Amino acid sequence: MPHLHGRAAAQESVFARMSRLAAQRGAVNLGQGFPGASPPDFLLDAARGVLGRFDQYAPPAGLPALRDALGADLGVDGADVTVTCGATEALHLLALALLGPGDETLMLEPVFDVYLPQVALAGATGVTVPMTLDAARGWQFSLAALAAAVTPRTRALLLNSPFNPTGTVFTDAELAGIVALARQHDLWIVSDEVYDELYFGPRPTPLRILAPERTFTVGSAGKRLEATGWRVGWIAAPPGVTPGVLGLRQITSFSAPAPLQAAVAAALPVARESGFYAGLRAGYAARMTRLASGLRDLGATVFEPRGTYFLTALHPDWTADSLLDAGVAVIPGEAFYARHAAPAGLTRWAFCKSDAEIELALTRLAAHARS
Amino acid sequence: MPHLHGRAAAQESVFARMSRLAAQRGAVNLGQGFPGASPPDFLLDAARGVLGRFDQYAPPAGLPALRDALGADLGVDGADVTVTCGATEALHLLALALLGPGDETLMLEPVFDVYLPQVALAGATGVTVPMTLDAARGWQFSLAALAAAVTPRTRALLLNSPFNPTGTVFTDAELAGIVALARQHDLWIVSDEVYDELYFGPRPTPLRILAPERTFTVGSAGKRLEATGWRVGWIAAPPGVTPGVLGLRQITSFSAPAPLQAAVAAALPVARESGFYAGLRAGYAARMTRLASGLRDLGATVFEPRGTYFLTALHPDWTADSLLDAGVAVIPGEAFYARHAAPAGLTRWAFCKSDAEIELALTRLAAHARS
Repeated sequence: MPHLHGRAAAQESVFARMSRLAAQRGAVNLGQGFPGASPPDFLLDAARGVLGRFDQYAPPAGLPALRDALGADLGVDGADVTVTCGATEALHLLALALLGPGDETLMLEPVFDVYLPQVALAGATGVTVPMTLDAARGWQFSLAALAAAVTPRTRALLLNSPFNPTGTVFTDAELAGIVALARQHDLWIVSDEVYDELYFGPRPTPLRILAPERTFTVGSAGKRLEATGWRVGWIAAPPGVTPGVLGLRQITSFSAPAPLQAAVAAALPVARESGFYAGLRAGYAARMTRLASGLRDLGATVFEPRGTYFLTALHPDWTADSLLDAGVAVIPGEAFYARHAAPAGLTRWAFCKSDAEIELALTRLAAHARS
Repeated sequence: MPHLHGRAAAQESVFARMSRLAAQRGAVNLGQGFPGASPPDFLLDAARGVLGRFDQYAPPAGLPALRDALGADLGVDGADVTVTCGATEALHLLALALLGPGDETLMLEPVFDVYLPQVALAGATGVTVPMTLDAARGWQFSLAALAAAVTPRTRALLLNSPFNPTGTVFTDAELAGIVALARQHDLWIVSDEVYDELYFGPRPTPLRILAPERTFTVGSAGKRLEATGWRVGWIAAPPGVTPGVLGLRQITSFSAPAPLQAAVAAALPVARESGFYAGLRAGYAARMTRLASGLRDLGATVFEPRGTYFLTALHPDWTADSLLDAGVAVIPGEAFYARHAAPAGLTRWAFCKSDAEIELALTRLAAHARS
């Protein structure tokens, strides 16, 4: 029999694996980042309303109504928006559109698991700059370290703010430094902002506002509207660049699911005007505080996020395996490290789950600690 | 400003372009291959029934219920099925999984427009073997020509049966020859069977039955269930190969739309048991006959397909542009030719449209011919 190509290594995503193990072993799933709650009624009602009316191919760039709704929501021209099959495809497409063999993309480490293989698939190399973590100051980012990693081959900066898994939200001063660096070396900026509405302090400034000429914003209806399985993501590109992305978009999956696009187009203004996102933030902030407090009571050092629905924790005795034995699935810190060593005892905890799940997880951990 | 990578050439798909032009100019759209009819009620009812219950990430391989339904439908093990964001993503994934730099894939020409760029994206070369077309015998395929094109670098055969745009359905004798060739040179077979239920003669034999050890079957709920915008496609892989495909599948789009997967899982057995596909074939056969007859009356030489919902025609005075001027959008033959010259005056006509649209198209063409 012929072989698969070498790039087709069998590797199950740690997120899919932990969800599978959680289901198999009856563990509370605080691993993969999907909400315990259902999507809001206004999204499901929108889906009911459009069913049977948007069933054939959407244009590759997306349904005009959704491009317009996103343009209004993000403050960009709808013509600069490309709708994708989730933010994962958006990032895959941008790697293909921006990078070729010999090119380098700079990113921070810890790093979301798809970034490096997506860059490698484009023939390029992901260069990671480690953040530092200490118990007192939490996660720290160094602009000087990022600048020192730039080479003549660097083509793009790939950033995630709010940042999964650290919960970092870059300050305006940090963003200004990042933009200056990108301009100095004429780099693209790929800004993964799928958690743009999930923040617990000041509203994050979108990088596209500071550097509209070079910033691609990646977003996700699944993250915003609590429907991670819908696969409606987007790219907001610098003005005029979208046609070059669309040529590739047509051969990766042609177009995104039309009925779900239509429902998202109807739901986005409702989410904005009804205060849905503020309610989401308030609910998640409460659960974050509860989970953080419970984990501290169990002896962990907890790093409260400024955004996303994850927190990170250090505990010398905890590994993802030992926690699974205790009946709780989390993501091991090593899952976010490819080039550097993960901090010992680091785990990522999703708090986008029900209060009951969080309480059950804490109860199980306490019982396990006593046993 | 930095540049996009060279592979990001702005190129609008001819199908998207003709649909856009048809809408702009009020032309009857017999170009892009999407049904004029709505999906069947049993599919839309299934979607209503699952809404609000499958809104978070599906596993990258697909919802277990859909993998099982596809296994039953295709006569394979559900564990060998991967659900994708439409058949386009399935073909993109397979190019990445099977091909690398220096590799060659053999395919026939005319060729569906995504095949060559998808193969190129994997770093490989698509080698096309032309079919011949003459007015008396129609489209002809030569196994000897295919065999002569095999080189030491050939890794895969990419076939489409029923074949868009020629309407060819390979006979069992032709398929046996293809399988023998693949076995002789140890080639993968990628069998694009998105039109597997759309045939007008004997039922096409799936290649996976003849060569299960090396055949990837690509299929599409959108084509089968008249919902091309749903983006639920699949790969049925040779036994044991799927884990190697899934590692890549996770970075192209992670997973396919979960609520639409759930609806398709419920609808597939209904489609099979209710005789839906037979009804579809009967309806399309009638429209194909009507369109073919009308085009012949206008002086065209028409090649009636054995499958798909397209027919091809030759007319010395017809180009896609001149037909658009007459108020009818079709796909120019050149859209399917990359390496060889298209037959002069070749056009592709979709008859998956309403009777009224087909009649209106013929009326407009007759009026234009008189003017």
